[in-house]
Amino acid sequence: MASDSPFPVTARNINPKVLKCEYAVRGEVVTLAQNLQKDLKANPGSHPFDEILYCNIGNPQSLGQPPITFFREVLALCDHPAILDKSETHGLFSADAIERAWQIVEQIPGRATGAYSHSQGIKGLRDTIAAGIQERDGFPANPDDIFMTDGASPAVHNMMQLLIRSENDGILCPIPQYPLYSASIDLHGGFLVPYYLDEATGWGLEIPELKKQLEAAKSKGINVRALVVINPGNPTGQVLSEENQRDIVEFCKREGLVLLADEVYQENVYVPDKKFHSFKKVSRSMGYGENDITLVSFQSVSKGYHGECGKRGGYMEVTGFSAEVREQIYKVASVNLCSNISGQILASLVMSPPKVGDESYESFMAEKENILSSLARRAKTLEDAINKLEGVTCNKAEGAMYLFPQIRLSQKAIKAAGDENTAPDNFYCKRLLNATGVVVVPGSGFGQVPGTWHFRCTILPPEEKIPAIVSRLTEFHENFMNEFRD
Amino acid sequence: MASDSPFPVTARNINPKVLKCEYAVRGEVVTLAQNLQKDLKANPGSHPFDEILYCNIGNPQSLGQPPITFFREVLALCDHPAILDKSETHGLFSADAIERAWQIVEQIPGRATGAYSHSQGIKGLRDTIAAGIQERDGFPANPDDIFMTDGASPAVHNMMQLLIRSENDGILCPIPQYPLYSASIDLHGGFLVPYYLDEATGWGLEIPELKKQLEAAKSKGINVRALVVINPGNPTGQVLSEENQRDIVEFCKREGLVLLADEVYQENVYVPDKKFHSFKKVSRSMGYGENDITLVSFQSVSKGYHGECGKRGGYMEVTGFSAEVREQIYKVASVNLCSNISGQILASLVMSPPKVGDESYESFMAEKENILSSLARRAKTLEDAINKLEGVTCNKAEGAMYLFPQIRLSQKAIKAAGDENTAPDNFYCKRLLNATGVVVVPGSGFGQVPGTWHFRCTILPPEEKIPAIVSRLTEFHENFMNEFRD
Repeated sequence: MASDSPFPVTARNINPKVLKCEYAVRGEVVTLAQNLQKDLKANPGSHPFDEILYCNIGNPQSLGQPPITFFREVLALCDHPAILDKSETHGLFSADAIERAWQIVEQIPGRATGAYSHSQGIKGLRDTIAAGIQERDGFPANPDDIFMTDGASPAVHNMMQLLIRSENDGILCPIPQYPLYSASIDLHGGFLVPYYLDEATGWGLEIPELKKQLEAAKSKGINVRALVVINPGNPTGQVLSEENQRDIVEFCKREGLVLLADEVYQENVYVPDKKFHSFKKVSRSMGYGENDITLVSFQSVSKGYHGECGKRGGYMEVTGFSAEVREQIYKVASVNLCSNISGQILASLVMSPPKVGDESYESFMAEKENILSSLARRAKTLEDAINKLEGVTCNKAEGAMYLFPQIRLSQKAIKAAGDENTAPDNFYCKRLLNATGVVVVPGSGFGQVPGTWHFRCTILPPEEKIPAIVSRLTEFHENFMNEFRD
Repeated sequence: MASDSPFPVTARNINPKVLKCEYAVRGEVVTLAQNLQKDLKANPGSHPFDEILYCNIGNPQSLGQPPITFFREVLALCDHPAILDKSETHGLFSADAIERAWQIVEQIPGRATGAYSHSQGIKGLRDTIAAGIQERDGFPANPDDIFMTDGASPAVHNMMQLLIRSENDGILCPIPQYPLYSASIDLHGGFLVPYYLDEATGWGLEIPELKKQLEAAKSKGINVRALVVINPGNPTGQVLSEENQRDIVEFCKREGLVLLADEVYQENVYVPDKKFHSFKKVSRSMGYGENDITLVSFQSVSKGYHGECGKRGGYMEVTGFSAEVREQIYKVASVNLCSNISGQILASLVMSPPKVGDESYESFMAEKENILSSLARRAKTLEDAINKLEGVTCNKAEGAMYLFPQIRLSQKAIKAAGDENTAPDNFYCKRLLNATGVVVVPGSGFGQVPGTWHFRCTILPPEEKIPAIVSRLTEFHENFMNEFRD
């Protein structure tokens, strides 16, 4: 940062919004882990573990989850449609995958799977997605409301870019939150208006808290434009009740807020007494139509049982905007031309998987159920183990892919972190990594009630590795607590 | 826009940067074309043409260009690696495609083609790309300098986001330019400092013009941060000489500017006396190393002979930044997790195609040469035809995918456009569309010397359709000139 830098661009003269933004999910702890991994490769046996287990990010296939066969068959055939009508293809691919690939290729103008599509995505695929939404919700969906995106992240950026004019524009975000939201608000120069989820009631989303924070922001001169709700919750794992969702819709309606509904974990619900309801379904069932509530639902192929993170497929369903504003959304989508076609195809498959009677149906359902039931078992085992740790409490992962336990740290540990100029939860997570190779993300990266400390841990390591993780975590935690006992 | 709008979001209260940005490549004329296409489908025979020919965008496969077989084979196999070791696969795929897919799958941690990768892209693929750059340039390339992106557009946005702090930060851009640059500068709230390419010398990029515009901007208090150069040019098609490039490098070095080199058309050079040289090669051959010049090169899988627009693959090679600034670039890349893996794989294939001796080599070279030689013929035929039109002059498309002819319009035509409240070139292009079904983009979408009028037309329609396009364009133009003769 010296002024005699040989470079014209320095940390002193770049966009301060870039400097300000943070993204802990791939922050300091992960960089440390990557270095440890290199070191393990160069010097095997140099650490008390022989592999790094990345529990920092919801990235199932990186931890060994296999892809869904049907989805991959269709993607491969669409990538190389020249083999669609060869006889050998029938020996390698299921009949319904071949049929589906034909359908998709026919839906693409000129069968051109390598062409830029319509800025919102291929019309035929948006038809499929709209039909999938309609089947899920029991209310109509319009393919013209679908904007397909490279994962959900660019869709969130699009909305923040549209709504944020200055630092006086606020977005209500849950705390804890997935740090894409804070990062995107920072990058677009807006103001994050926090509302706290209530840890004591299983990360409950309470309307009085929303009201309180909205009023506080207004009194500071902030124009609050939108409410972000993540359901199922990230990092918190809670699944909202329909009644709670109705209250949220009513709140947005009354206050003139855009409801930004992060629904990317809609397939990931692990407890029998909870069910995912889309905010679109809830608002339509309340009698609110297109002109009554402004609602954007984000969906992604990265999550769900399939976890196809690397395909970067996703969409937003945009409802309750005027034609003139939709034109602006379309224009900004057009600047980037379109999202990747494989991701678009996969998004259509996720919203329209094999049906009863299709050749792949049974194997597809078996793959899906295997993954979801295993995730439910892993969530429960990790939750139970974490709750047994001294000074740690952990709510249930009703859905999503994470646990977000609270760790009560001693004054001595807090002081030791201070001595290293780092947050206590960061200190804990780095210690955990160095002792076990397990990578988790400090709660400060998501936001937490001041003075409380958490970490986020995915439930994704392979089931056969869970016992070893539990015993290492338990051993580490005991040692840590003993070392820093006040 | 009425204040009694039922919607909380209106064109009056969205981000004015969004309102300001324009992207003519998918603007008004294209929307009109899409409506005509729907109308043609609903009412065949209702227009004097039976198909819409989209010459508005460099999207080769949408106009019938077939994909390169080897690339698609590898992509399909990486999408469904379960078939890699099946015997039937050898009946459907070439041996070197199978081998390459194995190599790539092995390069991906855990063989997880469905996992988020490193934020910069899969390390093994970046190694391949760096080796390809080194082979192209004869100078070393570092895989840690590669940031893989979903096409080149997000890379351009990343750089604009990094460099632009306020409307006092300027970016030198060619006029005419590809409107991604103006759109991105507007979206990030910066100032576009125009420099005019000299149409009379085949769209020459003159250093005195750069100096003049830089000084003019400085005198207005603008901090000019970067120079955008598009080579081969879009929409202009010129290929810079190495000598000219050296002068540009020297200019950036002397003025402390970041050189943003759009090199996405590096494979598209059609004239024997011109050759593509990367700015990295030119600057290294001048003796400027990593610490001497700040240079970002953008590359994409959308262009070249392969034209895989829908795959959204690309990268930027980022050199001459301090470690602290690179960390910021990495952080912003991390917020979006990673670019799509198929696009990453394809970018590696483009930079490392089949070699002599590989099973696919001869068929690959034949496919490639077929496309490039046909593009060269199409460019020449269209250029010659356009130059025969009354009042029209058109420079050569030495490279890229476009012609950008100047049309001298009569006062009567200009008045008629004014009566319709539209720019004269927009008026011309809409008339052309309505008469012929050919979609081109008005020059005003790219910028042009005030008082001159142009349009951009791709050279991409299938070769067998070129004669009909020429005769329709010629007939339309004659009628237009006659109708509006002063």
